[in-house]
Amino acid sequence: MSAQTARGMRDFLPEDTRRRNRVATTIQSVFQRYGYEPMETPAVERIETLLGKYGEEGDQLLFKILKRGEGARLGEVDLGLRYDLTVPLARVVAMNAGKLVYPFKRYQMSPVWRADRPQKGRFREFVQCDVDIVGTASLLADAELIAVAHDALTDLGFVNEFRIHLNHRQVLRGIVESAGVAVDREGDVLVSLDKFDKIGVDGVCKELEQRGFESHVVDRLRVLMDATDANPDSGLDIIHEFVQSSPTGKVGLLQLKEMVGVLGAYGFPPGSVIVNPVLARGLSYYTGPVFEATISGFSGSVAGGGRYDNLVGMFSGQSIPATGISLGFERLVVIMEERGMFSDLPCPVGVLVTRMGPEFLYDSIEFAQQLRAIGVSVELIYEDRKLAKQLKHADARSIPVAAIIGPDEKAKGTVILKDLRRGSQHEVPRADAGDQVKRLLSDITGSR
Amino acid sequence: MSAQTARGMRDFLPEDTRRRNRVATTIQSVFQRYGYEPMETPAVERIETLLGKYGEEGDQLLFKILKRGEGARLGEVDLGLRYDLTVPLARVVAMNAGKLVYPFKRYQMSPVWRADRPQKGRFREFVQCDVDIVGTASLLADAELIAVAHDALTDLGFVNEFRIHLNHRQVLRGIVESAGVAVDREGDVLVSLDKFDKIGVDGVCKELEQRGFESHVVDRLRVLMDATDANPDSGLDIIHEFVQSSPTGKVGLLQLKEMVGVLGAYGFPPGSVIVNPVLARGLSYYTGPVFEATISGFSGSVAGGGRYDNLVGMFSGQSIPATGISLGFERLVVIMEERGMFSDLPCPVGVLVTRMGPEFLYDSIEFAQQLRAIGVSVELIYEDRKLAKQLKHADARSIPVAAIIGPDEKAKGTVILKDLRRGSQHEVPRADAGDQVKRLLSDITGSR
Repeated sequence: MSAQTARGMRDFLPEDTRRRNRVATTIQSVFQRYGYEPMETPAVERIETLLGKYGEEGDQLLFKILKRGEGARLGEVDLGLRYDLTVPLARVVAMNAGKLVYPFKRYQMSPVWRADRPQKGRFREFVQCDVDIVGTASLLADAELIAVAHDALTDLGFVNEFRIHLNHRQVLRGIVESAGVAVDREGDVLVSLDKFDKIGVDGVCKELEQRGFESHVVDRLRVLMDATDANPDSGLDIIHEFVQSSPTGKVGLLQLKEMVGVLGAYGFPPGSVIVNPVLARGLSYYTGPVFEATISGFSGSVAGGGRYDNLVGMFSGQSIPATGISLGFERLVVIMEERGMFSDLPCPVGVLVTRMGPEFLYDSIEFAQQLRAIGVSVELIYEDRKLAKQLKHADARSIPVAAIIGPDEKAKGTVILKDLRRGSQHEVPRADAGDQVKRLLSDITGSR
Repeated sequence: MSAQTARGMRDFLPEDTRRRNRVATTIQSVFQRYGYEPMETPAVERIETLLGKYGEEGDQLLFKILKRGEGARLGEVDLGLRYDLTVPLARVVAMNAGKLVYPFKRYQMSPVWRADRPQKGRFREFVQCDVDIVGTASLLADAELIAVAHDALTDLGFVNEFRIHLNHRQVLRGIVESAGVAVDREGDVLVSLDKFDKIGVDGVCKELEQRGFESHVVDRLRVLMDATDANPDSGLDIIHEFVQSSPTGKVGLLQLKEMVGVLGAYGFPPGSVIVNPVLARGLSYYTGPVFEATISGFSGSVAGGGRYDNLVGMFSGQSIPATGISLGFERLVVIMEERGMFSDLPCPVGVLVTRMGPEFLYDSIEFAQQLRAIGVSVELIYEDRKLAKQLKHADARSIPVAAIIGPDEKAKGTVILKDLRRGSQHEVPRADAGDQVKRLLSDITGSR
């Protein structure tokens, strides 16, 4: 019987899981510091809940579940797998309208499924990590999400290696308006502008030409991109110039200024949050501030979000303001692996309790329990084997300390603690061994 | 647009998630103490991996995913949702045979999906919590799993309220053999015996009669059940009597005796682990020791497992010894909810930083950041509202402390810390406020 995972799906062996858990818990503790609470929704949603929410392409990429039971027609579908975490959030808000306390600040870190063609770094099951605030139009909420992303990237270890870009949809509308683009073609401009990072000024201009925009439009946007490129820290000034003739753009600019002031109070290092007049974010549902985080040396974003005041209400029919940011969990794991940022992850098992023969079995168990009772992670050898083989197992598992109780130690009530990294060992009374083991383990952790 | 979850599926709002996380992290920390590591497998498996593994009924209960793409026939299925965690474990072991270090000790706590008819306490998505040891035939492994369950139930709060039952499949074979039942009808006896807890001695005997067993068989099993009922702590003696004529039964008895000795070294309170000659465990794949945990006042088990030496090898074709136990995560959550065992779960947010007006905004943010930097969970008020309304929000969220910076405090560089449970408040210099807040929060936690 073949034993393959399904196409585009992954197993995570303990070492992978350890790394992923490090990323997850680091991010979670930031969310918690800012007062966000975890929420969970089922992997399986009614197919009506999912269809039509992600565009025609999204509908194609849904994993659809066959209806069961006698009444089902051939090929009939009634359920589908969760495609993102935003639509389920909107559903939960509608279902529990009277129950939630607003602003409702929740995070969800859960797998989603998309039947995309698998390729390097793209899988059919992957974790999304969303943090959202529902029920307030205050820009403080948007600013806070930037702070959350800032702290998360810092705590993950990307100190001074990331930048958070900030822009505003109304600013973009102002710029596009001033360039003479009709409202209904704004989306096309944003989709091209969104590729600025990847294809550069010339690439965006070429695409705009291909989309049929007139040369004065393309030129105006070229000037914007060139100015941004040349003065990445002068975003507000550049915007000021480009939205002069647009009331909408001016509102956006005012909001950006307010946010910049608020973000100043957060005390971030200079340059770690910048206003970027070219930042568009492709998704059409944003209505206010948009933001994105990038890491130096990595092309593409590692977090992105913005305000989307018209989306969460789609199930309840009434508009509810909301803003959110999504951290690129899978990308962060890959970048951290590539950069060796998990090298300090210890083996979770601290001590291997060995066995010198059947007559020492009960002593070994008692000693293992003595250590476990004070919170030490202990693995016990199950089968009688030569000590060298037992120590080889410790090595294979990267367990740093071995405990040995032989005839002498049993008689004296002692235990030998062997530091497998340094090769040193010493004999201690079993009553004191707990403290000694803890000291040894913290020495080993500290010396890495 | 209707906003319902799919039938049998649940959302977990923050309060639910908090409780579930408490159960999960408590159990995980026990697993870790014993040297088990987390592993994850995808929710979606190839349909061939799943079909035929869970009996005919199991095949019916699989959620099947429609094949996508142009080549797919109407109603064609290529994938299915994970139905348990054991088949995926077997697949992982086969796929990674050369990579794993044996004994391979892993746990997995993940949702599984079954298209069962939903009813009270039975859902179509539910978490399984499995811990298994693959690659050793040692009874120490089985004993350790009992210790793990013992510690998990203790740490969850069921001190002296649970009992772990232990039996052995070869003992059962011996008993059934001695009663004169043919090997091929052993399964029928075990299925009936497994209901002993629910339907009692008479119920089991009646069922055995209905299944066509002769009266001397039924009588023999009645004697066994009566003896067990009357002397729950004399399991080994009862078994001794019943397996006299069966070599298989005697092997099982010897193994049970060895396990009882080993479990003695773990130092459990008397009576918390007992040999139960009637414990059968319904699943047909067990080959050695079987175990089950029960909680007083709750009918049904909260953990169950045993040795299954022929299952993990099903994908690789070679037999690999394995033993495992599954903790009834969903049941434990329900029992703990019903018994008020989550009452000590604090609101995860410690402090609400209020806002006395727009001119205090930056002070509020700076103060919130000061507390977050030392790990305090802080929620910031986003919108200018009357203080009373802000405190009402703290109340709705059960946040225990409010921080207030008004004109006087701003001028003096102080902050008012209000203990919302006691109603008391005091003003402290902002530089010292971190320590004060931590003290206040630990007072509040301690006084609950």
